[in-house]
Amino acid sequence: MLVHTHPADLTGGRPVVPSRTALRPLGLAEARITGGFWASRQQVNGAVTLDHHRSWLDKLGWTGNFDPATGSTGSPERRGREFTDSEVYKLLEAMAWEVGRTGDADRDREVVELTALIARGQSPDGYLNTAFGRPGQRPRYSDLASGHELYCTGHLLQAAVARARTSGPDQLLDVARRAADHVCDTFGEGGHTGLCGHPEIETALVELARVTGEQRYLDQAALFVARRGHRSLPPHHFGWSYYSDDIPVRDATVLRGHVVRSLYLACGAVDVAVETGDAELLGAVVAQFDQTLARRTYLTGGMGSRHTDEAFGDDFMLPADRAYSETCAGIAAIMLAWRLLLATGEIRYSDIIERILYNVLAASISDDGRSFFYAHTLHQRTRTELLPPDQEQLGFGGGPRAPWFEVSCCLANIARTLSTLATYLATADGDGVQIHQYADAVIRTPLDGGRAVGLRMRTSYPDDGAVGIVVTETAPGPWSITLRVPEWATEATLVDGGERRPVTGRTAVVRREFAVGDELRLELPMRPRWTSPDPRIDAVRGCVAVERGPLVLCAESPDQPTDDLDRLRIDTSAAPVDASGTVTVLGHFAEPDDAGWPYGRTVPEEEPASHPVVLVPYHSWARRGPSTMRVWLPTS
Amino acid sequence: MLVHTHPADLTGGRPVVPSRTALRPLGLAEARITGGFWASRQQVNGAVTLDHHRSWLDKLGWTGNFDPATGSTGSPERRGREFTDSEVYKLLEAMAWEVGRTGDADRDREVVELTALIARGQSPDGYLNTAFGRPGQRPRYSDLASGHELYCTGHLLQAAVARARTSGPDQLLDVARRAADHVCDTFGEGGHTGLCGHPEIETALVELARVTGEQRYLDQAALFVARRGHRSLPPHHFGWSYYSDDIPVRDATVLRGHVVRSLYLACGAVDVAVETGDAELLGAVVAQFDQTLARRTYLTGGMGSRHTDEAFGDDFMLPADRAYSETCAGIAAIMLAWRLLLATGEIRYSDIIERILYNVLAASISDDGRSFFYAHTLHQRTRTELLPPDQEQLGFGGGPRAPWFEVSCCLANIARTLSTLATYLATADGDGVQIHQYADAVIRTPLDGGRAVGLRMRTSYPDDGAVGIVVTETAPGPWSITLRVPEWATEATLVDGGERRPVTGRTAVVRREFAVGDELRLELPMRPRWTSPDPRIDAVRGCVAVERGPLVLCAESPDQPTDDLDRLRIDTSAAPVDASGTVTVLGHFAEPDDAGWPYGRTVPEEEPASHPVVLVPYHSWARRGPSTMRVWLPTS
Repeated sequence: MLVHTHPADLTGGRPVVPSRTALRPLGLAEARITGGFWASRQQVNGAVTLDHHRSWLDKLGWTGNFDPATGSTGSPERRGREFTDSEVYKLLEAMAWEVGRTGDADRDREVVELTALIARGQSPDGYLNTAFGRPGQRPRYSDLASGHELYCTGHLLQAAVARARTSGPDQLLDVARRAADHVCDTFGEGGHTGLCGHPEIETALVELARVTGEQRYLDQAALFVARRGHRSLPPHHFGWSYYSDDIPVRDATVLRGHVVRSLYLACGAVDVAVETGDAELLGAVVAQFDQTLARRTYLTGGMGSRHTDEAFGDDFMLPADRAYSETCAGIAAIMLAWRLLLATGEIRYSDIIERILYNVLAASISDDGRSFFYAHTLHQRTRTELLPPDQEQLGFGGGPRAPWFEVSCCLANIARTLSTLATYLATADGDGVQIHQYADAVIRTPLDGGRAVGLRMRTSYPDDGAVGIVVTETAPGPWSITLRVPEWATEATLVDGGERRPVTGRTAVVRREFAVGDELRLELPMRPRWTSPDPRIDAVRGCVAVERGPLVLCAESPDQPTDDLDRLRIDTSAAPVDASGTVTVLGHFAEPDDAGWPYGRTVPEEEPASHPVVLVPYHSWARRGPSTMRVWLPTS
Repeated sequence: MLVHTHPADLTGGRPVVPSRTALRPLGLAEARITGGFWASRQQVNGAVTLDHHRSWLDKLGWTGNFDPATGSTGSPERRGREFTDSEVYKLLEAMAWEVGRTGDADRDREVVELTALIARGQSPDGYLNTAFGRPGQRPRYSDLASGHELYCTGHLLQAAVARARTSGPDQLLDVARRAADHVCDTFGEGGHTGLCGHPEIETALVELARVTGEQRYLDQAALFVARRGHRSLPPHHFGWSYYSDDIPVRDATVLRGHVVRSLYLACGAVDVAVETGDAELLGAVVAQFDQTLARRTYLTGGMGSRHTDEAFGDDFMLPADRAYSETCAGIAAIMLAWRLLLATGEIRYSDIIERILYNVLAASISDDGRSFFYAHTLHQRTRTELLPPDQEQLGFGGGPRAPWFEVSCCLANIARTLSTLATYLATADGDGVQIHQYADAVIRTPLDGGRAVGLRMRTSYPDDGAVGIVVTETAPGPWSITLRVPEWATEATLVDGGERRPVTGRTAVVRREFAVGDELRLELPMRPRWTSPDPRIDAVRGCVAVERGPLVLCAESPDQPTDDLDRLRIDTSAAPVDASGTVTVLGHFAEPDDAGWPYGRTVPEEEPASHPVVLVPYHSWARRGPSTMRVWLPTS
C-alpha cells in the first residue's frame, strides 16, 4: 500500500516524514489552528507549560546533570532517576516544535541555550548519558534492561529531528548524529548484541535517518527491531512481555506488556517497515493494533489496565476504577495511529486519534497548564485530593493531576503533541486534501505537481457538529477535498453550495474544479447517544456510557446530590438530551443496603422516581475541586 | 467484654494466649484433627512442605546468612532481599508447632539445629539481623521504613513463643528475649522514636510478654501501636496508608493500605488492648474489621484489590480478575478474627475464618505441597502456565502456583497455620465448649474448676453437612456444648438423641448434664445456592456466584467446551444442583461479536438452549493443568 513517494525534507515542521506514504503529512508551515477548543490549549502550553516544565527540571537538577560545574544546581552529585536526561530532551523537542509553530525568539534562544548545555555533557566519542560511565557511576550499557540509556538517546535524536525540521540543522543535530554514530558503532552488526529495555531508539533512529539520509541509522533501527522478542533481555518479574521481548514483532498478534514500550516499539517497527518496504512487518503491526483496539482499549481510547507494570491486561480486562490509561500511552497510540494512517491511507486511524485527543490528552492537562494526570481512571470513588503547586507526586501513575511526578514522562509528551497538533488535522495526496480533525484552522499545501491549494475551516466543534470549509486558494483542474466522517456519525450530511446530501460511508469526498470562495459544510450529528460495552468486558457489565460527538461523558459529584455515585441507576428508556453545555439522562440514586457481608442478599432495590442527572465531558472532570466521578453508569 | 481471666501458660500449644478473654483458646494438646479434608493437608504439610521450604532456604543461602562461615552456602556475601531472615523464623515457627502437633523427633532436632544457627548470628548486645550492621552493610535501624528489621525480629519472637508453648523454654527463647530486650532498650521511652514500615513486632512483643511475664515487652508493643498513624515514617509513593501510618489506630474506621501490614497491626492492637484493658482501642479495631468485611473483602474471604501496593482498594473496589487476595492476607485475617473471637466471644468471627480456610488457604497449596499461590485471582482469562519445580517466580503476586517466589512470605504462613489448625476448631469457657469449625477431630479440655470434658467429632464436612458429636468424657453437673451455625446455613437442624429441632439463630446450644456416649448431630443444609453481590461492587455487576456450604464454586475450563469462559451466560431460573462431587447450573456459551471496536454495538445476544454447566470448588482450581476459570458468572 506504499503508493506515494516523496523526498524527505528538512523544512515545514512535519513530525513524521516517511519516504513512502499513502498520504502525505503536512507540516506546521502548512496547517495552523486559529481558534476554538485546541487553540486555547496550545496557547497555555506555549505560554505556561513549557516554562513550568523547565522550572521543575532546573529545580530538581535534571538540567544541571549535564554540566555539574555550570548547571543550575552546581551540585557535583547527579540528581534524579536514571531516565531524567530524556525529560530534558523531550522538553527540548517540545520547545523546538513550539518555535516552529510560533517563531518565538525567546524560546528559540532557550533551545540554543539548552542545546549548548546538553552538548557539554557529551563525551568526545559521542556517548551522552549523565547516569552512566562517569567516575563513580555504573559502566556504560551495563544495565540495558533498566538503565534507559538507549531510550534517552532516542529522545535526544527526536529533539534534534524536531529542531532540524523546524529551524534547520544546528548544534543539536550534530550532537544527535555523534550520539547515534556511537550507538551504531557499539550495537551495529558484529558489535554488542543487546537492546534497550524501553523501546524508543528504534523510531528515533529511523527519523534521524530521514533527516540526514544516513542509511546506517535505518539499518541500526531495523537491527534493534529484529533483535527484540527473543528473550535476550534478562528475565523480568513482570515477564519478558514487559519489554516486548517475549515474541518477535512480526510474529505477535496483539500489543502487550508495558503499554508505552509496546507502542513505541510498534512505531519503530512501522518506520522500519515503511523505509525498507517490508509489507509483512507493517502488516503484523496493523493486525496487532486492530486487535488492541478491539480488545484492550478503553472507551476513551486510553490503553493500559494494570498499575503494577503499567501494562495491557488480558483481552477485555478493562476495569474502569483501576484504568491506568497513561497519558504517555495515549500519545504513543496517536503516534502509532498516525504512522499507520500515512502508511495505509486508511482514514479510520484518525478515529482513534480523535478519541484520544478529546478524552485522554484534553483530560490530562489542567486549565492553567501547570498540572496533569499521569493515569486516567474512569471511575473515582473517593474524592481526589489536589496537590499543592510546589509538591511533586512520588512515584508514578495514580492520584490527581499533579504539578510533577517523580516519574514525569507525560508532561513533555503532552507539550510536544499540543505544539504539533495542527499537523494531525489534514494530509494530502496527488489528488487533493484529506481533513481528519475538525477545528478552526487554515491549511495551505501544494498538491503533487506543485499546485498550491488553500482551505479555511470554521467550526465550534466539538460543541457543534457543523464544519465549514472555504477554498482560499486553488489551482487549475479538478482536485478533491475529503472529509472524515467519524465512526460514531451515522447520519452525517454534506452541504456543497446549495445542495445537501446524506453521507454514506466513512468519508465525504468532493472532487471538482474549485474556485476561491467555494464552500462545503459537513454536518455531524451531535445528539448524545447511549454506548454499550462488549459483554466480555466484565468490569462494566450492566452499565451504559453516554457519548456526544467525540466526547465521552461522565457523571461527576459537583452536579449530583451525593458523592456516592455508585448508587446511581440510569433509566435508558428515554434518550439522553442536550442541556446548555451539559447532557442529562434520567436516573435515580438507590438506597444502599449496609447490613454487613455484601454477598448473598437478594433484596430488590427500590425504584424511586427518575429525575434528570447531569453529565459533563470526561475531559472536564476534576476541575472544580476534589470530586468523585464515573463514566460507566449502571442501568436500573 | 473481657469477662474471663486465666493465667498465661507455657504448655499445651496455644497459638494465642490472651490474659483475659471471653472465650478460652485450646491448644494442640486439647484439639486434634483425625481425618477428612484438613487431615490430609496437615499430613502433606508436615511430610513435604516444611522440607520443601527448608531446601529453598538453604539453596538460596537465606539460612547460611546467619553464619556465613558455617552456613550451607559458605559464601561470605549475604544472600537475598532484606527480609529473608523472617522466612527462616517463620519456618522455624511452623516446625515448632509441628513438633507440638506430632512430637516428631527428627523435626525437633531440626528446630534445635536451626536455633543454634540463628543464635550464631546474634550480636553480643542482642541485636539480630543479617542484613544490617555488619561490615559493609547499612547501619542498624537506618531504614526503618523499608528495611524490615523489626518485622524480622517480630517473627523471631513468634517462633520462640511457638517453641516455648509446645516444648518449653529453650535456647530460642533466650535468643528472642535478648533480641526483644535490645528492641526495648533502643526504642523504649526516651529512646529512638521510630517504628517499622511493616507491622509485626507489636503482636510478637505482646505474645512474648505473655510467655515471659515481662511487662516491658507489652509496654514497648503499646508504644509502637500508639506511635503509628502520625506520618512519622517517610512519605511513601503509595501514601502513608501503605504502612498504616496515615491515621492512628484508634481513630481509623476501616483497614486500608498494604493488607498484610494493616492486619498484622490490627492483631497487635487487639493484643495490646486486651492486655491493657483498653476497650476503646479494641472497639476501634472491631469497627474497622466490620467495615472491611462489609466493603473490602472478596466472596472467598480474600482481601486486597490492588497488585501495585498489595493493598486494599476503595470501598467496593473488588475486581475479580485483578483480585490480589494474598495468601498471607488471608492468614493475617484469620489471626485477627481469632483474636477478636477470643476477646469478644462473638461467634460470627469464625464465619470469616471458615470462609478463608476453605477458599484461600485450601486454594493456595498444591496437592503435593510443593507449590503455592501467592495471590488469588477470582477470574483467570488466559491459561495459567505452571512453573517447573525448580524455578522460582520472580517478584511477588500474580501468576500460577509456584515452588517459590522471590518474595516468598506465604509458604511458611500456610505451614504454621496448617500445623495449628486444630486449635481453631473449638474454644471453652466456664460453662462448656464451643465448636467453631467442623472436622473429624477429638477435643479434650478442662472447664473452669478443672472438670475435664471430651468430645469426638465425626463428619464428611464440607462434602456433607452432617456433623456428629459424641461425648467421650464428662464431669458432674450441667455444662454446655455450643455449635456454630454458619451464616449461610439458614435451615440447620439439631438432633439431640432422638429429638430433631430446627435451629434458629447463629448457634445451637445444648446445656445439660451429659453422659459419656451422648450424641448430638448438627445437620447443615448443603444445597448449592446462588449468591448475588452488593450492587456497589461494579466489577461483578450482572453476575451471580454459586456457593455450597462453606465452598465458593467456580467454572473451570477442563469442564467446559471452551477456554473462553467470558462467553458463559447462566440461567438463574433453575436452582443449582448437586451432581456427584460437582455442582451443575444451566447456561450457555454466547457467540462473541468480533466486529472491532467493542463499544456502542447493541446487537442482542442470541440465546441458545441452556445445558448443564459443571462447577467445581474454587479451592480445587488449577490442579488439572493450565486452565481458565471464573467465580462470578454472568447471567443471561
